[in-house]
Amino acid sequence: MSLLVVGSLGLDTVATPFNKVEDALGGSSTYISLSASYFSAPIHIIGVVGEDFPKNYLQMMESHNINLEGLQIVKGGKTFRWSGKYHYDLNSRDTLLTELNVFEKFNPVIPPALRQSKYICLGNIDPELQLKVLDQIENPYFVVCDTMNYWIERKRDALVKVLKRTDVLIINDSEARLFAHEPNLIKAAKFIRELGVKILIIKKGEHGALLFGEDMIFSSPAYPLEMIQDPTGAGDSFAGGFVGYIHKAQDISPDCLKRAVVYGSTMASFCVEQFSTKGLENLSYLRIQDRFRDFLTMSRFNDSE
Amino acid sequence: MSLLVVGSLGLDTVATPFNKVEDALGGSSTYISLSASYFSAPIHIIGVVGEDFPKNYLQMMESHNINLEGLQIVKGGKTFRWSGKYHYDLNSRDTLLTELNVFEKFNPVIPPALRQSKYICLGNIDPELQLKVLDQIENPYFVVCDTMNYWIERKRDALVKVLKRTDVLIINDSEARLFAHEPNLIKAAKFIRELGVKILIIKKGEHGALLFGEDMIFSSPAYPLEMIQDPTGAGDSFAGGFVGYIHKAQDISPDCLKRAVVYGSTMASFCVEQFSTKGLENLSYLRIQDRFRDFLTMSRFNDSE
Repeated sequence: MSLLVVGSLGLDTVATPFNKVEDALGGSSTYISLSASYFSAPIHIIGVVGEDFPKNYLQMMESHNINLEGLQIVKGGKTFRWSGKYHYDLNSRDTLLTELNVFEKFNPVIPPALRQSKYICLGNIDPELQLKVLDQIENPYFVVCDTMNYWIERKRDALVKVLKRTDVLIINDSEARLFAHEPNLIKAAKFIRELGVKILIIKKGEHGALLFGEDMIFSSPAYPLEMIQDPTGAGDSFAGGFVGYIHKAQDISPDCLKRAVVYGSTMASFCVEQFSTKGLENLSYLRIQDRFRDFLTMSRFNDSE
Repeated sequence: MSLLVVGSLGLDTVATPFNKVEDALGGSSTYISLSASYFSAPIHIIGVVGEDFPKNYLQMMESHNINLEGLQIVKGGKTFRWSGKYHYDLNSRDTLLTELNVFEKFNPVIPPALRQSKYICLGNIDPELQLKVLDQIENPYFVVCDTMNYWIERKRDALVKVLKRTDVLIINDSEARLFAHEPNLIKAAKFIRELGVKILIIKKGEHGALLFGEDMIFSSPAYPLEMIQDPTGAGDSFAGGFVGYIHKAQDISPDCLKRAVVYGSTMASFCVEQFSTKGLENLSYLRIQDRFRDFLTMSRFNDSE
C-alpha cells in the first residue's frame, strides 16, 4: 500500500539573515515526500515541473524511493518558482516573487495503478485541485490535508468540502485563527473540527504543535534549536513525518497519532537546520529516533510526590 | 520553614472585551501568595499598602494562611493603583494608569523573625529593592525571582546582581528576548543562564512554559482554556504555584522542578478563568491535582512501536 503525495515542486530562491540560495529545490510535495521517505516506501508524487527542472533533483528524490511516475514534465515549460526573504527573527517573511509557470494549469491526474491508494497527503494547493484528486481515489483510508491563508480567504467553500473528506488537517496557528475568525486557539480548533475534519493539528513553529481529536488534546513541544538556517518547508516536513509514520505503523490509534505528531516535529526540526531540502537529504532512522527520544525527555514528567 | 514573598499589593481597574472591574485586589505578592497557599503554609508577605486598602482583602488573604505581619500599612497613605485595558485577543494590553502612591517609597524591611527564611520569592519590583531584601536574609536556600521589561531596560546592572544570588528566574518570552538582545529563545536562555542564574523559566502564555537548567530543558504545555476572563496575575500565579510546590516538597531535584513548573501552569490557568484574584480564592488541592493530571494526559506519549 503506497503513500500518495500531491503538491507542488518548485525552485526556490531564499534569503535569510545568514545566507542565500538560488533555484534550490522546493515545493510542498518535495518536502513531504522526502520527510516521509524515512518511514515508508514507496511514495508516489503527483505533480508538475517544467523541462528546466534539474535532473539531479529528480535523481536525489528517486534515491529516496520516491516514485516519480505521476510527475508531469511539461516540454518547454518553466517550473514553478518562489522567492522569499526572511526577517531578522525568522518568524516572518516577505514573498518577493511567485511565478506559477507550469503549475498554473496543473491538472492532477492519478495514474490508474494509484487510484486504489489508501494513504493520501494533499499538500498546500488549490482546494479545487485537492477535490479533483480525491474524486479520482476509489476508497481512501487516511487523508491528510494542508492548506494556507490564501485558500482560506479565497476558496473557503471548496476547502470546507475537502475537510469533510479529510481525516487530518494540518495548519498553523494564524491560519486556524483566520479560518475560525477566533483569537482563542482552543475555540478555533473546535470550530474547525465541527466543519467535519476528524483530527486537527495546529503547528505553532517554535512553540510546538497541538493535536485535537475526539475528546483528546495532545501538545508536542518544538525541538530547541539554537540555529535555524531556513524555515522554508518546515510545515511540509512536519506533514511528511506525520503521514509517513502513520503509513509505516498502519495504525491510527490515539497513541500512534501522538507519536506521529512528534515524528512530524522531529522532521521539521531537521528541515530548518539547513537551506532548502538539504536537512532532509542525509538522515538516518537512527538519528531520527534519537531526536524523537529527546522530545520524550523534554516533555516527560510524573505525578509522584 | 516559612516561605517569604516580597512584592506589590494593589488595587487594579481592569477592562477586557468581556467585562470590567474597579479597585479589585491586585499586586504581584497577592497573586503569588494566594497561589502558593494551596501548597504550603505559613506564607509571609512583605509589602506596603495605604490606609484605603479594603479590610476584606486582608481578611481573605489571612483566611488562606497568609501572614501579614510584614505588611506595612501607611497611615493616611493611598495604595498602589494600576489600570489596564486588554485588547480583543487578550495577548496585549494598554496600561491606562499607574499610581505608585505608598509603593513609591517602599522600603522592604524583613522582621527579625523572618531573616532566617530559606525560601524566598521576589515578585516583580525594582531589582534594587530585591537586593535590599536579599541583604537582610541570613542564608537563603532557594530564591525565586520575577522581573519585567521596565527593569531589564532601566536597571540592568542591579538585576544582574540579583540574578547571581537567584536560583530560579521566571520571565516571559518577550522579556527573555529583550534581556539577551536575541530573537532565538534557546540562545536567549543560554545567555541569561550564563549571567549566573541556575535555572531559568520562560513563560509563553498560551504556548506553555520552558524550564532551562544544567543539561536540561523541560517543556510544559499551557492548559487549553476556551475562555480567558482576565490574564492579569497569570505570571505571578505561575510563580506562586511553582515556589509553593517546591516549598511543600522540600526538594529541588529535576523531577520536582518539572512538576513545579506544571503546578505553576496549573495555577496560572485557574487565575485567568476569573477576574482579579477570584480564580485563586476558592480552589481545593483536589481540583488542582485533577488539572495537574490533565497536563500529564495532554503531554504524555510513548516510544513503543
